Amino acid sequence: MTTVSDEQSRREAQLTETVERSFDTAPDARTREIMQALVRHSHAFVREVRLTEAEWDAAIAFLTAVGHITDDRRQEFVLLSDVLGVSMMTVSVNNEADGDATESTVFGPFFVDDAPLIPLGGDIGGGAPGEPCWVEGRVTDLAGIPVPGARVEVWEADSEGLYDVQYGDDRVAGRAHFFTDGNGDYRFWGLTPTPYPIPDDGPVGALLTAVDRSPMRASHLHFMVTAPGFRTLITHIFVRGDELLASDSVFGVKDSLVMDFDRQVPGAPTPDGRELGASWSRTRFDIVLAPGGDAAA
Amino acid sequence: MTTVSDEQSRREAQLTETVERSFDTAPDARTREIMQALVRHSHAFVREVRLTEAEWDAAIAFLTAVGHITDDRRQEFVLLSDVLGVSMMTVSVNNEADGDATESTVFGPFFVDDAPLIPLGGDIGGGAPGEPCWVEGRVTDLAGIPVPGARVEVWEADSEGLYDVQYGDDRVAGRAHFFTDGNGDYRFWGLTPTPYPIPDDGPVGALLTAVDRSPMRASHLHFMVTAPGFRTLITHIFVRGDELLASDSVFGVKDSLVMDFDRQVPGAPTPDGRELGASWSRTRFDIVLAPGGDAAA
Repeated sequence: MTTVSDEQSRREAQLTETVERSFDTAPDARTREIMQALVRHSHAFVREVRLTEAEWDAAIAFLTAVGHITDDRRQEFVLLSDVLGVSMMTVSVNNEADGDATESTVFGPFFVDDAPLIPLGGDIGGGAPGEPCWVEGRVTDLAGIPVPGARVEVWEADSEGLYDVQYGDDRVAGRAHFFTDGNGDYRFWGLTPTPYPIPDDGPVGALLTAVDRSPMRASHLHFMVTAPGFRTLITHIFVRGDELLASDSVFGVKDSLVMDFDRQVPGAPTPDGRELGASWSRTRFDIVLAPGGDAAA
Repeated sequence: MTTVSDEQSRREAQLTETVERSFDTAPDARTREIMQALVRHSHAFVREVRLTEAEWDAAIAFLTAVGHITDDRRQEFVLLSDVLGVSMMTVSVNNEADGDATESTVFGPFFVDDAPLIPLGGDIGGGAPGEPCWVEGRVTDLAGIPVPGARVEVWEADSEGLYDVQYGDDRVAGRAHFFTDGNGDYRFWGLTPTPYPIPDDGPVGALLTAVDRSPMRASHLHFMVTAPGFRTLITHIFVRGDELLASDSVFGVKDSLVMDFDRQVPGAPTPDGRELGASWSRTRFDIVLAPGGDAAA
């Protein structure tokens, strides 16, 4: 960090204090708290890096470009928050560690509210291209007691790297919901997760290129689990061995969410006797819910 | 600050470290430094306020609105930077305290490159409405040695609160440039500065309203002074007694830049014998330039 004179340091601190105080009159205490913290942290950033005026100009131009590419279908500010890990940090502070409760990760933009209800053991694929994957597990509380009737939403990209909603037609594929049985157990056929890039043809993609970072997301399968009396769990599972685990573009990977996906040769007997005639995989994901009042999805 | 468990704190610190490390590969060292500092400070902000997901949503929506109102003529991101004091902090770190050198303040969006050249003692008004104001002073170096031939650009709003370029016609008024004489002295007729609001009909204006802050800028007159071998000075002078001094919406006011403007009754003799027949004011602004190589405007 650059050293500055005492007088310069005094002037900078004085400016921050003046700006902070300008929010003292905010009628809403939470707004005041947030804005004053934003002032302190944004000022500390400018002071630490000694931001030049040319760099400030570049920042304004970058944000302008982010704003102009954003529309009803493209949210570049969310992408920016994602690639800076700000989205993931927000998830983290809102889903604090609680014993062995399953960790949360980013929600992402591809959830839809009305995914089909399937029976346990059903197939979420809906004709989506990809390798079949048998997923099973049990939902319990922190004490290991099963949670029957938990609502489980699952969704994922197909082997083309696209979610159904990205095709621009009316297909529903790679998503469904179901409920755990009396033992808290669930099981379904999905697709072995495959990697895909976040949209990288805009200013956020240019930023990633400039810093030599990949836009690829590690392969994953989304889960959202809700049950009365429990904190809603929004998470993914990842594939052990995926070379993208260490460089997920949105920092969604947590060690505890990396699962073994066991590859099966064509013809290997399936758990439910289904005849596949091609390779498939299987994994197990046991879910531990934290207590909480917010059972609504 | 909310207390979190050791495990939660470890997870949050780990996330910040992971995101910081993702920029390790940036080929440009300065980009790396800036992005890693941005990660640390933005994450510290989210952690400190325990930003809720609803608040994160609101922030994304706010930035989207800022992006969408921004066009070639309206720069809402600059306004946002201004009202958070980030613009002024950037000015401060780029114009460090140097002995008695005159302090800098914000540049603003209303400078134009080709303002008319006037002789010393000339009038910058160009027919703009407002009370005449005689401004004089001397430009010196830190040792008090006069700087002859310094280029001085001045510009200001009229008594309607508008700069010439805001009228949408071709008028040139309330702006000019001139050069100091052999003694480093300058003098001109301008207008007694009057207050005006920053554009407050967009999301930044809504933010100011929500926190009960005024969009008004304290009355001021802009200066930019350049001379070979000196750091370019971009500053304002303010009017002692202006009730807006303590609440300038962009935090441009510094005590050292507040000047006495002496009000003169109609008919009071003017410094250059000009007959006014109306009230006028006068002020003195002596300017001390810091050494520096960047003499280009």
